[in-house]
Amino acid sequence: MATKKIFLGIIGGSSCTKEVGQLAYDVGKEIAKAKAILLCGGLGGTMEAACRGAKSENGTTIGILPSWNRHSANQYVDYAIVTGLSEMRNLLVVENSDAIIALPGRYGTLSEIAFCLNSGKPIISFSNWNISKKMIKPENPAEAVKLALEKIGNGR
Amino acid sequence: MATKKIFLGIIGGSSCTKEVGQLAYDVGKEIAKAKAILLCGGLGGTMEAACRGAKSENGTTIGILPSWNRHSANQYVDYAIVTGLSEMRNLLVVENSDAIIALPGRYGTLSEIAFCLNSGKPIISFSNWNISKKMIKPENPAEAVKLALEKIGNGR
Amino acid sequence: MATKKIFLGIIGGSSCTKEVGQLAYDVGKEIAKAKAILLCGGLGGTMEAACRGAKSENGTTIGILPSWNRHSANQYVDYAIVTGLSEMRNLLVVENSDAIIALPGRYGTLSEIAFCLNSGKPIISFSNWNISKKMIKPENPAEAVKLALEKIGNGR
Amino acid sequence: MATKKIFLGIIGGSSCTKEVGQLAYDVGKEIAKAKAILLCGGLGGTMEAACRGAKSENGTTIGILPSWNRHSANQYVDYAIVTGLSEMRNLLVVENSDAIIALPGRYGTLSEIAFCLNSGKPIISFSNWNISKKMIKPENPAEAVKLALEKIGNGR
Repeated sequence: MATKKIFLGIIGGSSCTKEVGQLAYDVGKEIAKAKAILLCGGLGGTMEAACRGAKSENGTTIGILPSWNRHSANQYVDYAIVTGLSEMRNLLVVENSDAIIALPGRYGTLSEIAFCLNSGKPIISFSNWNISKKMIKPENPAEAVKLALEKIGNGR
Repeated sequence: MATKKIFLGIIGGSSCTKEVGQLAYDVGKEIAKAKAILLCGGLGGTMEAACRGAKSENGTTIGILPSWNRHSANQYVDYAIVTGLSEMRNLLVVENSDAIIALPGRYGTLSEIAFCLNSGKPIISFSNWNISKKMIKPENPAEAVKLALEKIGNGR
Repeated sequence: MATKKIFLGIIGGSSCTKEVGQLAYDVGKEIAKAKAILLCGGLGGTMEAACRGAKSENGTTIGILPSWNRHSANQYVDYAIVTGLSEMRNLLVVENSDAIIALPGRYGTLSEIAFCLNSGKPIISFSNWNISKKMIKPENPAEAVKLALEKIGNGR
Repeated sequence: MATKKIFLGIIGGSSCTKEVGQLAYDVGKEIAKAKAILLCGGLGGTMEAACRGAKSENGTTIGILPSWNRHSANQYVDYAIVTGLSEMRNLLVVENSDAIIALPGRYGTLSEIAFCLNSGKPIISFSNWNISKKMIKPENPAEAVKLALEKIGNGR
C-alpha cells in the first residue's frame, strides 16, 4: 500500500564533484538498506549518484523530472515521472518526501530547502546552504538516514 | 531502468457502476499480465478497480494524485505521487503513459481524452466519449491491452 | 479592485479560418463594449482575433500563456502572463474566467470545454464541440456576451 | 502591447512589521512613478503594502495568487490571476518579472530569491536573506527602482 512506504527525498546539484558524488552514493545506499524509497529530481550529479547507491542495494528509486522527457532521467531511476513543471517540480520533490536529505547544490537546491523549511518537514543536511537551525547536520550517511527516519517517527 | 518500462495509463470516472468497475478490474489485470506498469490518477472508481485488478496479478501501480495528500490514493496504488495540481494533473497522467486505455467517465475523463488526442498518443477506448476516429474500440480488456502495446510498437 | 471586474474567457483554436476570425473579433469587440475584461490563452488565431476586437473598442485583454516566453503573446494582449505549464494552463484560462465563450477549435479547446463543464461555470458556445446541453448556443456575438453576463448574474 | 511594458516584481512576507510595510509601500509608489507595472503574489503584508503604494500613484498592479480563489487577492490588486499552484506560483512571480525587488520575508520569499538567482534576472534586495553577491543593495526605494530599471536596460 502506498501510504505505508517511507519516501526519503534527496536534493542536491545536477552536477557535483567526485567527493560529493561519493557522499550521495553512500546516502542512497543507506536509504536502500533502510528499506525506504529514494525519491529525487531524477537528473544527474547528486541525484544520479544517490540513485546508483540505492540500486547497489536493490533499493527502489523514483525521479520527479522537470521536463516532459522521460529519457532525461538518469539510468538508475526505476520510476521516472515527467511533470513539465520545470523548476516548479522542486515542490513536488519536497511534498512527495517524508523527510529530505540535502546534499550540496546551487539555487535549485536552495529553492527545495526553502520549500522544505516552509513545509515543516524534517531536513537533514550535508548542504552548503546553512540557512536555518532546523537543518540537522549528520556525521555521515548512515546517521543521516537514521536521523531522517527518527524525525519521521519511524526510526529504530 | 526507467526508460525500458511500458506505462499504460488508465483514465475513467472516480466513481462507477459495478459493471464498469468489473471492466476496469479486468483491464488492470491484463495490464499486469502483460508486465506493463499501470499508471492512473490514483483515486477511486475506475482507477481503484483497475489498480485492484493489476495487484491481483502482482502488477505495479502508480497513482498521480491531484492533491498534496498521499492518503487520498486508493489502497491498490503502489507508488502515490502527489502533485497539488488539481485537474491539471490530468495532463501528467497522459504524458506519463505510453498509451491510454479509456473507461467511462465524466468531464475529467474527457479532458484526459482531449490531452491524449492532442499529444497523438495511442488511445484505446471503452469510453462513452466517442469524439474521434483515432479512439480505437477494443472487443475486451485483453484486446485493449494487446492493441495498446501494438500501437506503442511493443506488441508481438 | 480585482474582485469587481468581470473576466470573460475566450477559448478557441490558435489558428482559424477568416470567417471564424471575424466571429472571434466580433465577440472580443462586444466584450469590450460590455466593459468586461477579455481573458484568453494569449496566442494566435481566435485568441488574437478576439483580442484585436477588444482593443478596437479600447478594451482590456489578458493572455495566459502556456510557455515562459512573454513574446509568444499576440500583439493585442495588454497583460501577458507566462506560466510554463504548457496545456495545463488551459485550466487557468477557465478558472480565471467568470464565464467562457467558446469558438471553434481542436483538442486544446475541447480540454478547456471539459474543464469548464467540470467547474460548472457558464459556457456560451459557437464551438464545433457539442458535447453537453449545458453549452448555451447564442445567435450572435452580442447575444453571446449578453448571455454570459446574465449567467454570471451581472446582466441587466 | 504586452511586450513593451516593464514588470517589476515585488517579493516579501505575507505579513510584516509596520516599518517594512512602509518600505514596501514606498517601493510600490516608486514603481508606479516609473510607469512600470507592479507584479507580486497578490496576498497581504508586503504585497498589499506595495500594491497600495502603487495605487497611490495610479499605478497598475497584478497579483499572481497561489490558490484558485480570486478573492484572496488584496484590495489593491488590479488584475488578480489565480493559479492553483500553491507555492509553485512563486516561480511564476519571478518569471513574469523583468527584475525583482526583494523585501523581508520568510521561506516563501527565500524560494523566490532562489528562483530569481537561478534565472539570472536582476534582483534588488532589502531582504534579510543575504545569500548572494548578485543581490544588489539599494539605499532607498527610489534607488531600488532606478537600479532595477537600469539592470533591465531601460533606466535613464
